[in-house]
Amino acid sequence: MSLKHLATGSIAPPTVPGKIRLYSMKFCPYAQRIHLVLDAKHIPHDVVYINLTNKPEWLLEKSPLGKVPVIELEEGKTLYESLVIAEYLDDAYPHNKLYPTDPLAKAKDKLLIGRFNSVINTMYKLLYINRDVFDEVLSELEFFERELASKGTPFFNGNSPGMLDFMIWPWWERSDVIRVLYGDQFSIPRDKFKRLLKWRSAMKENPVVQASYLDTEVHAKYMRSRRAGTPQYDFNY
Amino acid sequence: MSLKHLATGSIAPPTVPGKIRLYSMKFCPYAQRIHLVLDAKHIPHDVVYINLTNKPEWLLEKSPLGKVPVIELEEGKTLYESLVIAEYLDDAYPHNKLYPTDPLAKAKDKLLIGRFNSVINTMYKLLYINRDVFDEVLSELEFFERELASKGTPFFNGNSPGMLDFMIWPWWERSDVIRVLYGDQFSIPRDKFKRLLKWRSAMKENPVVQASYLDTEVHAKYMRSRRAGTPQYDFNY
Repeated sequence: MSLKHLATGSIAPPTVPGKIRLYSMKFCPYAQRIHLVLDAKHIPHDVVYINLTNKPEWLLEKSPLGKVPVIELEEGKTLYESLVIAEYLDDAYPHNKLYPTDPLAKAKDKLLIGRFNSVINTMYKLLYINRDVFDEVLSELEFFERELASKGTPFFNGNSPGMLDFMIWPWWERSDVIRVLYGDQFSIPRDKFKRLLKWRSAMKENPVVQASYLDTEVHAKYMRSRRAGTPQYDFNY
Repeated sequence: MSLKHLATGSIAPPTVPGKIRLYSMKFCPYAQRIHLVLDAKHIPHDVVYINLTNKPEWLLEKSPLGKVPVIELEEGKTLYESLVIAEYLDDAYPHNKLYPTDPLAKAKDKLLIGRFNSVINTMYKLLYINRDVFDEVLSELEFFERELASKGTPFFNGNSPGMLDFMIWPWWERSDVIRVLYGDQFSIPRDKFKRLLKWRSAMKENPVVQASYLDTEVHAKYMRSRRAGTPQYDFNY
């Protein structure tokens, strides 16, 4: 397990029989989705981190679009797209199912995962294009606050986190970065998002989340380097 | 089963116990995906067609985004988004599975369904924005031609159509509309897409496809009315 992000000129580390290989980037929220699924289901795996600015020459052999996350099941047998990988792992490793087993409940979770894409897109706009869209992020989140209220459980999945919880978590882990970068007026208001903020605290304490968790300050440090046009993948924290 | 598209001022027809209700629009390719799945799996259902220009007041109760397709399982219990619906039906009605049962093969089909979104987006651009992108459509299709070649079977699913075949079919049924509207230089070249065009012919003969099939001329007639800004939903053909 290499902790340094491999770059141009590196050699592809051979896969280890019996272990799934995850190609990841320490600060990529989509890659974190797969860390969460692998950890939640206790699937034996190792991780190779990729420098996405100076990509290894061999990355395209593993990932046709040159992106992470990618998993390699055995030498040359790969799969990309975070949601496709997550659903594959839940199908192929039937113990500790992350999706509800009821088909309708599962379909509804997929709708919410799809709907969360608007939150992701607006958060991205907020960070890289235009600060004015913070209210748009909040109004998208109202929908999720109501969902949690109607479920009446601490997690979207019930009494423990499931697929929907894990698929949206990486952006919640980064939700305070905006406040750190832009100031306190970019906090998520406690009164309007009581349930979601309680959910966020509960998720943060979860051992599966803890395994890949990074502090707001660490995310902010990476984000600053990225906004400056020189993303730093390897720094001490 | 109403053949006329219901509009503003109409009354929502009550659902029939034991039958899934599909809210559809005769010329909507996303809705056709669900007709294909319901027909392929022989799921008892009825159809209510919706006028998407003058929408019924009650549509928002069934479909939070006011779009089709939507399915209603029993009064008020609905599901939207074509791919979520299709996967739900394949999960909830396990006979005659449309996805491969092997998790990896299923994941790869999902990647291809996702990848076909670029074809859909470029076809849309071609029809409504800019004729210059025809080459882009063709270069996206090369990927699917190669996939079919590497599988070596008449359908993406093997010897009969499966989920991937049905999810991409509606745009293939409309693929000659561009030639009818713009001229023969907008034909898909036979020499470069031998396998895909053979697949298209085989799909067209399939009884499931036949059940919702409409001729190129009918699609072109609708498309002309839509391009003129006055979509005609109910006309004789």
